[in-house]
Amino acid sequence: MNILITNDDGIFAEGIYKLACALDKIAKVYIVAPDRQRSATGHAITMHEPLRAEKVKFFDKDFDAWAVSGTPTDCVKLAIEALLSEKIDIVFSGINKGPNLGTDVLYSGTVSAAIEGAILGYPAVAVSLADFKNVNYNVAAKFSITVAEKILKNPLPPDTLLNINVPNCKEEEIQGVNITNLGARKYKNSFIERIDPRGQSYYWLGGEVIDTKDNDGSDIHSVKNNCIAVTPIHFDLTKFDLIEKVKKWNMQVK
Amino acid sequence: MNILITNDDGIFAEGIYKLACALDKIAKVYIVAPDRQRSATGHAITMHEPLRAEKVKFFDKDFDAWAVSGTPTDCVKLAIEALLSEKIDIVFSGINKGPNLGTDVLYSGTVSAAIEGAILGYPAVAVSLADFKNVNYNVAAKFSITVAEKILKNPLPPDTLLNINVPNCKEEEIQGVNITNLGARKYKNSFIERIDPRGQSYYWLGGEVIDTKDNDGSDIHSVKNNCIAVTPIHFDLTKFDLIEKVKKWNMQVK
Repeated sequence: MNILITNDDGIFAEGIYKLACALDKIAKVYIVAPDRQRSATGHAITMHEPLRAEKVKFFDKDFDAWAVSGTPTDCVKLAIEALLSEKIDIVFSGINKGPNLGTDVLYSGTVSAAIEGAILGYPAVAVSLADFKNVNYNVAAKFSITVAEKILKNPLPPDTLLNINVPNCKEEEIQGVNITNLGARKYKNSFIERIDPRGQSYYWLGGEVIDTKDNDGSDIHSVKNNCIAVTPIHFDLTKFDLIEKVKKWNMQVK
Repeated sequence: MNILITNDDGIFAEGIYKLACALDKIAKVYIVAPDRQRSATGHAITMHEPLRAEKVKFFDKDFDAWAVSGTPTDCVKLAIEALLSEKIDIVFSGINKGPNLGTDVLYSGTVSAAIEGAILGYPAVAVSLADFKNVNYNVAAKFSITVAEKILKNPLPPDTLLNINVPNCKEEEIQGVNITNLGARKYKNSFIERIDPRGQSYYWLGGEVIDTKDNDGSDIHSVKNNCIAVTPIHFDLTKFDLIEKVKKWNMQVK
């Protein structure tokens, strides 16, 4: 089995190392990841400048690894279309440092890389550790092996993938695995205005999470209760049940 | 009525000028747009560096206009949360030079800006001209007025928005307005490898469109037939009908 691994925290982040070491036990792993921190890049692709891909030593391992000057989505495209000649069986993205829950997935480079894998026709999984402090990737890494094995036995339909969030706790503290929906995780954005030494203002994006419409079946609820959240997602944004309604507006070019 | 206008082609692109001039006929327009070309940025946000917002002269107009150093999504957040004190009635993004059809919407800065508007709770519309050459924004600009008027009379449900693609033709050549679904517009990605003067390779993302699973109700089909495509979209990526199926995998932390 061949597994392509990418992330959005950059190729030298601890999370991708832990994921690669875990999946190395069941597959040949190929790492193609951004050369630096590229979180919150969403599904950005690099069209207006060329990409560099440099073969790098991946920590203490002999894995095939490339550091790419682009976004996570670029990495998946470039890996599949240019760098690798081997047939890839699964695309993994992660382990992200921090949650990718609910509406957050729209901003997430981690999830977007997995979406790109699915667009290109591969089974794809995004894995995130739902915390920023005192991170312990062990449970997420171990669970990724389970997911890889399950996804090969139980193929997902085309154009779908799994988004996984793992609570930051010890294995014995995990309360279970839930198959969830995306919750509504919105932010109260607050921009902090500051003045630079030349008297010009600039803004930092701040903001705190507001959990709205949280429901028992959501990924957010699951992680709060120390359960692993596995959310099946797709990328057809059509709001089908609105089509007939908008037809009745009877819009014309006038 | 107050309308916030952004885009991803940059604040000095012709498309945003045409849109602002059209909507100025029915509303007070505020322009907050990237200071340069930011297409294909997806839903990227700027978290690791601060944003600059400079008040600028917008072509020959006296509109309130800011050029922002961030992405289209940043522009909407910053406009709503920091720059504008007025209550905004609609967020418009466009007019994009080039189509945003089918799967493309995932990569589109134009559509992502409108999605951000919807996330923040505003009626939101993305408008694109479905061509790159000999562009004529007149029909798209005029139709945007119709859409603005209709959307105020017929509020969309929360967390939904409209994605509009207008064929690049004269008004009399438009064959109608269709309410559509997103087609499957995938790319045969081809990376072109080149060698720089120092002997190092680099890659350009190329690629041609492959229209797969195109159906009569799709936005792609509509634009091909010289009809305006209006697609209601949302941003909950949950694939609900897969939840029960994945539950049966019975995954454990082992």
